[in-house]
Amino acid sequence: MAAARAVLLTGSNRGIGLELVKQLLGSPRPPAWIFATCRDPEGPRAQELRDLASKHPNLVLVKLDVENPSDITDAAKVVEGKLNGMGLNLLINNAGIYTPTASLETVDAEDMVRTYKTNAVGPMLMAQAFLPLLKKAAQDSKEKGLSCSKAAIINMSTVLGSIKKTADSFFHPVISYRCSKAALNMLTMCQALTYKEAGILCVALHPGWVKTDMGSQEADLTVDTSVRGLLSVLPILSEKHSGTLLNWEGKAIPW
Amino acid sequence: MAAARAVLLTGSNRGIGLELVKQLLGSPRPPAWIFATCRDPEGPRAQELRDLASKHPNLVLVKLDVENPSDITDAAKVVEGKLNGMGLNLLINNAGIYTPTASLETVDAEDMVRTYKTNAVGPMLMAQAFLPLLKKAAQDSKEKGLSCSKAAIINMSTVLGSIKKTADSFFHPVISYRCSKAALNMLTMCQALTYKEAGILCVALHPGWVKTDMGSQEADLTVDTSVRGLLSVLPILSEKHSGTLLNWEGKAIPW
Repeated sequence: MAAARAVLLTGSNRGIGLELVKQLLGSPRPPAWIFATCRDPEGPRAQELRDLASKHPNLVLVKLDVENPSDITDAAKVVEGKLNGMGLNLLINNAGIYTPTASLETVDAEDMVRTYKTNAVGPMLMAQAFLPLLKKAAQDSKEKGLSCSKAAIINMSTVLGSIKKTADSFFHPVISYRCSKAALNMLTMCQALTYKEAGILCVALHPGWVKTDMGSQEADLTVDTSVRGLLSVLPILSEKHSGTLLNWEGKAIPW
Repeated sequence: MAAARAVLLTGSNRGIGLELVKQLLGSPRPPAWIFATCRDPEGPRAQELRDLASKHPNLVLVKLDVENPSDITDAAKVVEGKLNGMGLNLLINNAGIYTPTASLETVDAEDMVRTYKTNAVGPMLMAQAFLPLLKKAAQDSKEKGLSCSKAAIINMSTVLGSIKKTADSFFHPVISYRCSKAALNMLTMCQALTYKEAGILCVALHPGWVKTDMGSQEADLTVDTSVRGLLSVLPILSEKHSGTLLNWEGKAIPW
């Protein structure tokens, strides 16, 4: 990731998103710009992000609710202004929601639609809105092939979105989440095929089951371990990975 | 399919749905009940269905828009009344919508959500509402294992919902459709795992690319050939097929 000069993340005020910001800031060659977006950067849940921003001039907080299409286009304008002619190298669609209790017995239409809007439609709109900046980064790069340092979209997915793996891990039914993430995996494949010519890498990543508000404290991995893994996978991604789902150790997960 | 005594289909006023009704009515041992649902059974687009119903007392038309949760629960009450203590053997979630022009450039949040509601959320709600009648059919059956003559949910899916196959067939991007059908495939897997204990088979079927309003006249297959294929696949389905995606010839399609 050494060379990704401009990075944008959604859902960056807590959990994996916040840890990604911290570790990017602390890396040997931090990005020139980190655009950390969240629903309410002025609110009490973004205090840690604001503290970081006060110490790191390369960290810019941007208001963005991925459920709100006009928030997304507004944020793209703010980012374009800050970049001042530079492209965006890396878009990390990290924001996601999860209804832990949604079994087939209990799930309803409202939960299905709300989860889909955030977890699948949001990443689709983000890519649309930031596409000109991603294309700009790809055009300005001298690198051949595809890479995260050139131009990339990373969709934070999950093994729970793997239909094939569902039989192994169905002790968590989470229907609305699973369906939305299977759709996100399809979106990632479509993005990889569509944006390849523009020089943009598109990969879905599974961060593992992580001790966050979403993952609960019963989870396998600390957020530090997961994010360290994810950030070590990004630099090895190339065109052969575009349109795949990989875990935090870079291992492929079937659809 | 000889032994499926009570069958319900959505989207049955045209295309594959209407042909399923016709071929079921014309089969050597037609079902005792065929509940053919559509959005407007009194409207001009259901004339052919009404003509059939006037000749076949085992064909019952039921108003049902799968986007409308209260329509679904109302329909379940009507069907329960007609069945009068009998179970429902076969639920065919056939209704679906499709935006042929939805590329990543043109697709918007509204189309994504509308398509998801009809193609993925609708089948989920249908299964929830008709579950007691499907369970009743399974309980009343003396058959071992799982089968369409005992109790089954068939979700009409598509190869375009296969993420793995997307690279082969991306000349039709249809993003909103693909994402909704990948989610439907995930739903089918979750249903298979959840409803197995209740004795209910759950399979996703790809009807082929069919000459219908949706498929256009450029398509490969006539609706007669597709539906003949689908109806010859149903009787061979067993527990080993539950939670899979098969085409109209019974061949497995990867996720």
